[in-house]
Amino acid sequence: MVRHMANPLTPDVLVDPVVLTRTLVDIESVSRNEKVIADYVQDVLKQAPHLTSDRHGNTVMARTDLGREQRVVLAGHLDTVPINNNFPSTVVDDLIYGCGASDMKSGVALALHLVATLPDPGYDITFLFYEAEEIDSQYNGLNLVSQEHPEWLLADFAVLLEPTYGVVEAGCQGTLRALIRTSGRRAHTARAWRGVNAIHAAGPVLRRLEDYRPRTVTIDGCTYREGLSAVRIAGGVAGNVVPDECTVEVNLRFAPDRTEKQALEHVHEVFKGFDVELTDSAAGALPGLNAAPAREFLTAVGAEAAAKLGWTDVARFAALGIPALNYGPGDPLLAHAPDEHVEIGKIRDGAATLHRWLAAP
Amino acid sequence: MVRHMANPLTPDVLVDPVVLTRTLVDIESVSRNEKVIADYVQDVLKQAPHLTSDRHGNTVMARTDLGREQRVVLAGHLDTVPINNNFPSTVVDDLIYGCGASDMKSGVALALHLVATLPDPGYDITFLFYEAEEIDSQYNGLNLVSQEHPEWLLADFAVLLEPTYGVVEAGCQGTLRALIRTSGRRAHTARAWRGVNAIHAAGPVLRRLEDYRPRTVTIDGCTYREGLSAVRIAGGVAGNVVPDECTVEVNLRFAPDRTEKQALEHVHEVFKGFDVELTDSAAGALPGLNAAPAREFLTAVGAEAAAKLGWTDVARFAALGIPALNYGPGDPLLAHAPDEHVEIGKIRDGAATLHRWLAAP
Repeated sequence: MVRHMANPLTPDVLVDPVVLTRTLVDIESVSRNEKVIADYVQDVLKQAPHLTSDRHGNTVMARTDLGREQRVVLAGHLDTVPINNNFPSTVVDDLIYGCGASDMKSGVALALHLVATLPDPGYDITFLFYEAEEIDSQYNGLNLVSQEHPEWLLADFAVLLEPTYGVVEAGCQGTLRALIRTSGRRAHTARAWRGVNAIHAAGPVLRRLEDYRPRTVTIDGCTYREGLSAVRIAGGVAGNVVPDECTVEVNLRFAPDRTEKQALEHVHEVFKGFDVELTDSAAGALPGLNAAPAREFLTAVGAEAAAKLGWTDVARFAALGIPALNYGPGDPLLAHAPDEHVEIGKIRDGAATLHRWLAAP
Repeated sequence: MVRHMANPLTPDVLVDPVVLTRTLVDIESVSRNEKVIADYVQDVLKQAPHLTSDRHGNTVMARTDLGREQRVVLAGHLDTVPINNNFPSTVVDDLIYGCGASDMKSGVALALHLVATLPDPGYDITFLFYEAEEIDSQYNGLNLVSQEHPEWLLADFAVLLEPTYGVVEAGCQGTLRALIRTSGRRAHTARAWRGVNAIHAAGPVLRRLEDYRPRTVTIDGCTYREGLSAVRIAGGVAGNVVPDECTVEVNLRFAPDRTEKQALEHVHEVFKGFDVELTDSAAGALPGLNAAPAREFLTAVGAEAAAKLGWTDVARFAALGIPALNYGPGDPLLAHAPDEHVEIGKIRDGAATLHRWLAAP
């Protein structure tokens, strides 16, 4: 039996972002099992003479302190969803297949490649490699660090290397879930008129959802498309009982020009006359494309930004007043899929773009 | 430790339907635990020289063979719903409290009292004391006997001694349950427009239920009031997914002028354009008040019949072409309630009415 204790993230591997991606995929790191990969990454950071590093749980941080005028964050999560017959990696033509190849070890590879190859960047850089993004936010390393070491996140601009297929996705929409409840009075269905049917009473709730016309909002050239969806409905006591309660769970995805409070007011307005109970919400993030490093980043990429519709960890930076965007080589449509893969060309493009941007100013 | 092996249904007890009711309540007989009470009842039947008796499981039968022109059935179930801090019986003023007092040991008491006190009735009588009415119909003693000994049920008329509070409730409504399904296409709620929301699509199903105007049908002077109720609704995949399926379970209670097939056609018509799946149905029973013993029974009671709205075992007689009705001293609104009780006066009235009817012809 042979056990490899040596760090597979060798200088030879770090110098090539494609080889590095594959090597990272081959270090299993399903959420809550990030210790090994965090140890290897921390080891790489400690060996870089231009960085000082620190650790919180399985989240590791390193930063330059070169006295640059502005500081940028490059961040990525180390964990993956559970393996699904897609470990270790395989390569077919110009595609690397494997759990996390898209979401988001190819993004992590871009950052680690910069650690190893860009000792003298034009901005000060903070690298954040964090744990547990794929599970409940109470475990999310970026969330924990934003509470316990908020200074680690401080910067003028942040890039989250989540899969965007090389597109710049700016800001993010907020999300809010609420329960809309109807009530009635139980009765035997043989004497249904003695009761009040709470499921029938939910008809108008569904009608308002059917009739709802979501807004489309453009901010900094990014177009956000809102949506209001029923995601769950439940009601019923027994096969012979007029039910006295029915619950519709709705999910509002809202453009970042609304605050969480305004989003909740909007839901109350849509379901006026009904009992509305907020269950959870998360603020969106404005695209913040007017920050100088953001404009320079867009120039380096050579393309316009698009709106990020899903909620992402960029909102954790936005909450601290730091503009942030998503940019990564993976394809978001392949995230969490059994045939998850990443195009080798997208990894090379991404590495070149980040080098161009960070070397320049 | 003293164990009472002696049958508590002594001649002294049998002669008084009120004492008999209380004695029966004090023999615990929750569904599937009817052996002891069935043994005691069978023992009483065997000791009656004018009866021949038989048994199937915990269902016992006894009959006269006096050569009368017509035969009537008196039937009651021996089981109760689970005890709920209401065992053994207590008496407060003119009320007997206890599990089964209303549903339907007071009814069983009327029949057993007749066994002991009416050796020479004007009709031939078949007594049926059966098991497992309160649970799934696969265990129902009357159902089992109707399949395996249908000759035990044959008669010109049947009285089921279920609680009706001394009112004659004729026939019964049918019941049908069906699933109405809507389908859609899953999508992330951040891109809801890429999906089709099956819960939103259930809006029109609920609208048809809201708009539904049930029929009221009068047959043999009995007025049946139909109803169509949603009894359950379910849909949803996850808090961030546009759901691709929603199911509404509906229960139609239909007057006995419709067959099961016609009832199903009606449901298909109401939900035209939607996927309808029948889950179960049971035919109703026409009141059948034109049979001679039925008319004489109404004369003995001295009141008109009302329609029975709930489904009851009278439909098992109707399926064999035997008119049947419900008549018992218990209050149906107290059935299955923790404070279940029966009025002593209703027991005495019921016993007198049945004597008057059965002694007369």
